[in-house]
Amino acid sequence: MAISSKVPSSPISSSAIPAGFRFGAVRAGIKPSGNPDFACALAVEGTTGAAMFTSNRMVAAPVVVGREHLRDSGGHVRFVAVNAGNANCATGEPGLVACRSVCRAAAQQFGCREQEVLPSSTGIIGVPLAAEKLVAALPRIAGELGSSPEHVRQFSEAILTTDTRAKTASATLKIGDRQVSLLGVAKGAGMLAPQLTAHATMLVYIFTDAKIAVGDLQDFLGRAVESTFNCISIDGDTSTNDTVLLLASGASGAVLSEPAQEAAAPKFSEALHEVCASLARQIVGDGEGAGHLIELDVRGAANAADAKQVARSIANSPLVKTAFAGCDPNWGRILAAAGYSGVKLDPYKVSISIGGLPVCRNGQVAPEFDKDRVHVAMLERTVNVDVDLGMGDATCRFLTCDLTAEYVRVNAEYST
Amino acid sequence: MAISSKVPSSPISSSAIPAGFRFGAVRAGIKPSGNPDFACALAVEGTTGAAMFTSNRMVAAPVVVGREHLRDSGGHVRFVAVNAGNANCATGEPGLVACRSVCRAAAQQFGCREQEVLPSSTGIIGVPLAAEKLVAALPRIAGELGSSPEHVRQFSEAILTTDTRAKTASATLKIGDRQVSLLGVAKGAGMLAPQLTAHATMLVYIFTDAKIAVGDLQDFLGRAVESTFNCISIDGDTSTNDTVLLLASGASGAVLSEPAQEAAAPKFSEALHEVCASLARQIVGDGEGAGHLIELDVRGAANAADAKQVARSIANSPLVKTAFAGCDPNWGRILAAAGYSGVKLDPYKVSISIGGLPVCRNGQVAPEFDKDRVHVAMLERTVNVDVDLGMGDATCRFLTCDLTAEYVRVNAEYST
Repeated sequence: MAISSKVPSSPISSSAIPAGFRFGAVRAGIKPSGNPDFACALAVEGTTGAAMFTSNRMVAAPVVVGREHLRDSGGHVRFVAVNAGNANCATGEPGLVACRSVCRAAAQQFGCREQEVLPSSTGIIGVPLAAEKLVAALPRIAGELGSSPEHVRQFSEAILTTDTRAKTASATLKIGDRQVSLLGVAKGAGMLAPQLTAHATMLVYIFTDAKIAVGDLQDFLGRAVESTFNCISIDGDTSTNDTVLLLASGASGAVLSEPAQEAAAPKFSEALHEVCASLARQIVGDGEGAGHLIELDVRGAANAADAKQVARSIANSPLVKTAFAGCDPNWGRILAAAGYSGVKLDPYKVSISIGGLPVCRNGQVAPEFDKDRVHVAMLERTVNVDVDLGMGDATCRFLTCDLTAEYVRVNAEYST
Repeated sequence: MAISSKVPSSPISSSAIPAGFRFGAVRAGIKPSGNPDFACALAVEGTTGAAMFTSNRMVAAPVVVGREHLRDSGGHVRFVAVNAGNANCATGEPGLVACRSVCRAAAQQFGCREQEVLPSSTGIIGVPLAAEKLVAALPRIAGELGSSPEHVRQFSEAILTTDTRAKTASATLKIGDRQVSLLGVAKGAGMLAPQLTAHATMLVYIFTDAKIAVGDLQDFLGRAVESTFNCISIDGDTSTNDTVLLLASGASGAVLSEPAQEAAAPKFSEALHEVCASLARQIVGDGEGAGHLIELDVRGAANAADAKQVARSIANSPLVKTAFAGCDPNWGRILAAAGYSGVKLDPYKVSISIGGLPVCRNGQVAPEFDKDRVHVAMLERTVNVDVDLGMGDATCRFLTCDLTAEYVRVNAEYST
């Protein structure tokens, strides 16, 4: 199994693109920049789909409609329609009508049922979506669809908003004598602290050509998301539109749930996890204004939930994040953020390393703490932070980024 | 009852200073700047004290010791010793020893019991406190104590860290034929999202010359804190050292708990609330790098806890805070932050105004929304945000500030 994390300048290889899917993107006129803003994927008949959506109660229209469609279609998806530049959120009943009109037109254009269309939107909240522009673009999309790396590149770029680069990851594995491919495409750089429930404005689309039954697909996705996309945060703001979609076309001929293939499930799980982990890391690495990717390892927690809760509290602390922007080994802020996480902790048992250098041991400054050395270690683009709570055996790997003046600039100027 | 919120350039009047207290401050050599950093208050015998401390589990040594002393003394306080420049937190057993040595020396210097000394510290976390410098400064403090506005000014300035100005508030009321004074002094500009339990590095000291029994004093304080200091946030980071202390000397001769004075309790409560509210507002107004004070009114909540939870979620959202830094009427971010608060909401019932101008009605853009007009309203130093959840009758007034590039600068450079 090979994992590759690619940027547009280094395109996905043809063999990494799962069979059964065609991709395309056009300019529909939603993004003020005039860049491509409508990305679509067409799947062969029989494709199964599983999704996880944001836990935010102010959900966007496409999340409402997407949930409905997956339920009503019994987990069958033929068409994915993603617009960037407008989140179609806080748009009321007209927003739902707009979303449904795009789905209906796509179903007509591509000969599937309306419930087999999965819509997504990302961009500004509270502005009516010009659905007619998307509807008008569908015939052009139909002429653009294809299965080449270039088509995937177009899809991956059209879904971006404040992202500075496209995010893709792929994996291949053998099931029996069949080669199975996984391809993941993601966007997200801000308003990002996914809290995905069995159903997070992170948008992630993962395509595979294995044949997998709907229930199994949801199980695979749920396990992969929990330790990847649900363990990242850029700013602690959970979006109204977050969506992770996994589609299985079956076009490789490999059937994952057949008894003979039981050994394949862990292999597929691992490949899916690695694609998700790569995309999650690329998303945080492209965090708005971020100068550093912070790999936070919380260890020694009483249980997994505690580990994640402490990690999230540290990852979302503005004081921790600004300290990393300044490469300032102010470990007391890490300790304080752990302390207000709500998890029961013993201050005298907490030890912290930054970049592999001990800074705090048993709740006090580590005797070997050398501020200048730690500062140098923090100059690296990726900085590991290890927090041992000393309470048990549970762990959590959580990814976040620093909080910079550039983040403030990007977000103080977004809608104006 | 007159409420005055004063800055050092406009000193507290003599009549606002409660009888029974003397104040002073000296340079002990803890702050690297060499500014005064050790502030003390001496109370007459019989003074009762009530306190609320941070809910952070990583509590500083002075919080541990302060809780012990209040318990062991039965709520009697004679001396308040506050050092700035070092939080004496994450300093282990040596930190406790250091704190106790200052208390013991103060008790000897001023002829009280060690348990009657209430210590506080604010500043960097994880650096051993040079207690010997504080102990050595105590005799000088003894020569400096006094009851004049100038003494109060010295106290109020020596407790500051990243604050740009001192924070004091006062109120007077009549109980029977006696004049009672309340004087509040506070510091705090960052690591500030107090979560005080019946016991937040906000430091607040409130002095009154009413005579109030310990239990009553704690009740008065608890009620006042809940709707003031527990309803403010600068960065969402709850400090390890937050402390609010209320001391009642009884020196005015007015006794609050006497049956004949029952009508006085609501009057005292109101005066205490106004002093706390003024200090809370001054703290947020002096938020690190803040350009705007945001008055957030959440209305129409199902209950008070929901109202506060939604308010806190909005107040702590980096995306909301950066939008206010840019005077950008991006109300979708407010709606999104309410949505991920964890409170059950109906998106179609939420309405939002900024600066009195409707921006969102029933979950959609308000028809009269004029982005340019709202932008102009957001240029004001103080901006009101009104969020009506449409679920019930409960409300919460919550104060926060914007998130600016200057906040990042201040906090990326703090300990280095």
